[in-house]
Amino acid sequence: MMKVIGVDPGLQVSGYAVVEQNRDEVKIIDAGVIRADTRLTLGKRLRQIYQDILAILQENQPELMAVEELYAHYKHPRTAILMGHARGMFLLAAAEQGIEVLDFAATRVKKSITGQGRASKEQIQRAVTSQLRLARIPRPADLADALAIALCCLNEKNREAIVS
Amino acid sequence: MMKVIGVDPGLQVSGYAVVEQNRDEVKIIDAGVIRADTRLTLGKRLRQIYQDILAILQENQPELMAVEELYAHYKHPRTAILMGHARGMFLLAAAEQGIEVLDFAATRVKKSITGQGRASKEQIQRAVTSQLRLARIPRPADLADALAIALCCLNEKNREAIVS
Repeated sequence: MMKVIGVDPGLQVSGYAVVEQNRDEVKIIDAGVIRADTRLTLGKRLRQIYQDILAILQENQPELMAVEELYAHYKHPRTAILMGHARGMFLLAAAEQGIEVLDFAATRVKKSITGQGRASKEQIQRAVTSQLRLARIPRPADLADALAIALCCLNEKNREAIVS
Repeated sequence: MMKVIGVDPGLQVSGYAVVEQNRDEVKIIDAGVIRADTRLTLGKRLRQIYQDILAILQENQPELMAVEELYAHYKHPRTAILMGHARGMFLLAAAEQGIEVLDFAATRVKKSITGQGRASKEQIQRAVTSQLRLARIPRPADLADALAIALCCLNEKNREAIVS
């Protein structure tokens, strides 16, 4: 049995998905989004994100946190740096709870879920929906991304177990 | 009397400077650098930064935190995002302690300290050294930057008091 949390950090909306694998069965334990109140100062928004993710970790106690790797090129550098502020809250909360963090390149997540490193957002969403036998595509996109990275993490961990 | 902390966040080295103004006298209460152990994981490094700045705030209880404003263009986007992770720790610690954060554009800091918005690093360091009557230029540069932003914050606050 393995329980991991996939996260997709953002300053406005962050997705998270706690999934558990028991032999061949994968189920969602808890999943949703963390929204920070945009009327607050940046510091208070970060505090809200931090407290929310900390509570989610404390409640669900996953063994691992999976997050997308940083990459070097972003369209909007300022947004990327603000995302960095939010991403820090997730890493801090994981460190506080003694949870190991694994990061995965976006292409690796895509390949792991769909078999293709250049899969589209829609292909990933459909693959997540089908693999988790969901009635519909999870919304918002941040939640679907969090589920994808959690599934990628389980896949990689399973492969590791087979290899070693 | 006014006590402010100027900070220059970085993932490897962060500068901080707590300065107090009493009428015309400005003195340094506490100043130094926070270094995160580069052998640790990113989450653990962030936790170290967070705990250090939190302890500094608790001990010194400044009224305000001054930090450089984010700007849109960075030479190294990845470094900028990692700096964002560290900057988040400072903002979170300030929010936890109920300390208001003011951010200042780099040009405003330069103008406030030297009279010139395009002053060089050396000009700023000399101005800080002279204004605080220090025996030598503060090192490392992160510490000098933290002192500069703290002095800028005091200047701006004084001007505000005169204007209003």
